This record gives sequence, structure tokens and C-alpha cells, in this order.
Amino acid sequence: MNNEKQYAPLGVFDSGVGGLTVAREIMRQLPQERIIYFGDTARVPYGSKSRETVTRYSRQIVHFLLEKGVKAIVVACNTASAFALEAIQGEIPVPIIGVVKPGAKVAAETTENGIIGVIGTEATISSQLYTRVIHQHNPHAVVIGKACPLFVSLVEEGWLKDPITVAVAERYLESFLASDMDTLIMGCTHYPLLRSTLRGILGDKVHLVNPAYETARSLKELLEEHHILNDGQGAPQEIRHQFYVSDAAEKFKNFASSILPCEIKEARLVHIEE
Amino acid sequence: MNNEKQYAPLGVFDSGVGGLTVAREIMRQLPQERIIYFGDTARVPYGSKSRETVTRYSRQIVHFLLEKGVKAIVVACNTASAFALEAIQGEIPVPIIGVVKPGAKVAAETTENGIIGVIGTEATISSQLYTRVIHQHNPHAVVIGKACPLFVSLVEEGWLKDPITVAVAERYLESFLASDMDTLIMGCTHYPLLRSTLRGILGDKVHLVNPAYETARSLKELLEEHHILNDGQGAPQEIRHQFYVSDAAEKFKNFASSILPCEIKEARLVHIEE
Repeated sequence: MNNEKQYAPLGVFDSGVGGLTVAREIMRQLPQERIIYFGDTARVPYGSKSRETVTRYSRQIVHFLLEKGVKAIVVACNTASAFALEAIQGEIPVPIIGVVKPGAKVAAETTENGIIGVIGTEATISSQLYTRVIHQHNPHAVVIGKACPLFVSLVEEGWLKDPITVAVAERYLESFLASDMDTLIMGCTHYPLLRSTLRGILGDKVHLVNPAYETARSLKELLEEHHILNDGQGAPQEIRHQFYVSDAAEKFKNFASSILPCEIKEARLVHIEE
Repeated sequence: MNNEKQYAPLGVFDSGVGGLTVAREIMRQLPQERIIYFGDTARVPYGSKSRETVTRYSRQIVHFLLEKGVKAIVVACNTASAFALEAIQGEIPVPIIGVVKPGAKVAAETTENGIIGVIGTEATISSQLYTRVIHQHNPHAVVIGKACPLFVSLVEEGWLKDPITVAVAERYLESFLASDMDTLIMGCTHYPLLRSTLRGILGDKVHLVNPAYETARSLKELLEEHHILNDGQGAPQEIRHQFYVSDAAEKFKNFASSILPCEIKEARLVHIEE
């Protein structure tokens, strides 16, 4: 039987550009899927905002994506996954997946000594969602969370391997070095860009978990489960991915083109609060 | 003749908590004035957003303050002053003042060799408003602008005199050290909190201009001009200042109480986009 819904696009959203690392991973692992991406560049960052506000903003974006006819939604933002996903998933008619659960599951399976670190925004760490999900898979795990609010600014400044970034990372990771942590979740979509700085401080023995990678893997399973994984047999789509932002479309387009495997022709501006 | 309008409150707004440094200065210099403060904590920061978005957000807040019956408005945010003030001032029935013009005027008058530095957000520096206003007062001045995006995060992390903050400041101020700049405008409301770090790097010979201080002085002149400076003879007001925010009211209240000369009993939450 033919199932036309498989050819509908995937909705992917983030507070800004960070979620593009998740979109990139989906493009790599599921190259036949078409993405409609929304970056809330007017209201970025979410990491210092309250649960209520992050949920309200996420709900607005989810409705926008549903109007575009998406078959499933990826919350490509750790803060929105931690604060808004549970509230929203019961309200909508399509499957929705965040980045926290896939990352937490893999960390719980990867650790050998049961000591797992999580770095993220203030909001993600205070939500304790990583801890809760890890404990579902591994009730005896010890989870150490640490908010690293400067990391996003350092990445956006482009100081990825800078001595200043190394000094900030050493400060933030201090408490982990005193523990026997063997697995660290990079719990914010910007952080994988600091991977080599983190690796330099933590050494080779600590597993670094990138939730973007794990999310693309879980997404494939979710689409299969719902029989909506694109089989690549539909009509060819000339314009594949679409990008929408709430501010500064040109700046977004340039940034997106620099990190995605394809060139972005256009990012369209949407007044999402209306 | 009695003029009842003088007893109406002043509206003061900012993208978040930074404008409290301006409110504090108004409380010091004009202790008889009552303030209604709005901090847009849901959509903070403004410094990386576009002119259109900053203007739209500022307009929403101005309308909110007008509904509260304010007699005048202070834009206690450099970015909003640079991007939105000119557009809004023709649209409203009360006087409005920003922080850029008072800061720029004093810098133009203070410099001896005509070389002035400006540090601020990306948006404030790219607007070139400081340069334009300085040139109105001193057409031959050389103005050197430098965006310092990490400073806000460092202040919010509380690392005011930290070696990391010193290293970041040295990096940002490098280009100024190579010049003969004798006056530096701290063109973001967070930056005066880094004054001693900046002073340590620049030495004693550079004048540091704090626009918050100059704005409170200019505000007094503006209120006198419009005959609405509170003469302190009105009915005593038990609850004087009022605080509104778009997110995280409790966190705001605690921060405000720590930097203002009075204790804040309440900060009320407003969904400003509606």
C-alpha cells in the first residue's frame, strides 16, 4: 500500500541556529527527508528563560510547523526539550521527539562506572530532565549537572579553540575532574562545536555524548514505527529544505550555509508571536 | 498654578535587568520621582537582534507604559535607544529620552584630543548612533567602536573582576590601546559593573563615561523643560516604584533588590506580546 504521508516534510525547531547541528545530522542519516526548520532568532536564547515562557514559545512554533503540514516534529533545542516537550506532545496529532531523551539513553548505556556528567544551559540543568531519563535506564547512575552559560556566547564569538575558551571550560569542568565521571553529555546544541576543547581538558577516557547524533538515530526509529519514513520513491522535490526565522534572516542564511552540507537559498522571516 | 501631571510616574524600560543601573541613577538624582520599570526578560538580549525587531518590541513596551499613565519615558537600554528611539518619539504624546545621546554629548565635551572609544552590543555599535551624535557636538572627533558581546554574559555570571574577564577585556580593548583614545563610553548598561576591570587595563588617563549617570542628569532638564519635574509636594505615595517583567519575576525581584537602594516587594509578570 502506498502511504502518501511519508512524503510530507519533517518540522525541526530551535531557539536559533544551534539546532542546525541537529538538522545537519538528520540530513546525513536520513538524506531522503525534507526539513522545514524554524529558528526563533528574535527570542533566542531560551536557556535563561522560565518553563512557562519556553513552553509558550515552543507551542507557537509547533503550531506554525503543523500548518506547514509536517508529519513529525524534532525539538532540536535542549532547553525546549527539557521544558516544553512533555506539555506539548499530548496536544498534537503528529509524533514529536526531543534531543534530551536520546542523549540520556545513550549515556546511560555507555557509562561503565555509572558516573555521568551533563553540561547545558541554566534551564536545561535546573529541569533535571537528563537526570530523570538517565535514571529510567540506569537507576543507580550518579548524574552531575553543570550549567555553562558562557559557552553559547563563546561559540557565537567564534572562539572555539581560544585560550580564553579553554580557561572558561577548565573552570566549568573543574567539578567533573574531581569525580570519576566517564561519560559527559554535551547537553546544548552549541557545545559539540567545543568538542576538541572539551576533549583536551577531559582526556581520552571520557565518552562525549552528542545528543544531535543520537536524536537523528532515534528519529529514524520513530518514523519507521509510524510508517512515515520516506522511502525515497516519491516525486522529486526541487526545493527540498525550507528555513524560517523570527529575526535577521540574512545573517541566519549565511550561518546555515556555512554549517549545513547544502547551500541555503533563502530564510524567510515570520512574526511568530502573532 | 498647580500642575498635577508632575505627580505622574516615569516609565523606564530595558531588555532586562541592565536598565536597573539607569533606574538607580534616577532614584539617586531625582529621589522624588516615582518609576514604573519594565524589563523584557522573556526576550532579552536585544543586542544581537535587528532594528525591526528591537523597534517592534520597544513599541509594545512604550504602549504598555503609556497605559500606566507615565508622564515621560526613559529608554534605559543602549540598543533600544540606538534602534527604536527615533522611530517612536514622533508617535507618542509624552517626552522620551534614551541613554545614547546624553552619553555621546558628554564624551564629545570631555575628550581633549578628540579620540573617543565606544564599547557596546553588536547592535549598538553597528547602528553608529554614538558616532553620529558625537559628530553633532564635535565634528572632528575620531570615534572607534568595538562590540563586546561576551561582557553581558560575564557580568551575568558574576565574574566582575575575574582573570577570565580581564583576559576577555584585554582582547576587546586591544585596538583601543594602540590608539591615543582619551575617553571611552561604556555603551551598554551592564558595562559599568566592569568599571574596575576596564580601569585596570586602560589606566588612569582614559575618561570612562557612564551614560546612566548622564541620562539621569539630562532627564532632569527634560522634565523641567516640560514643567513636569515632581516638586515633592504631592500626596505621599506609599508604594512608590513598580516593576513589571515579561518572564521570571522572582529572579528579577531578587536581582533588583540587590542593586537598587530600596527593597523590591514585587515584580509583576506581563505577557507583553499580546
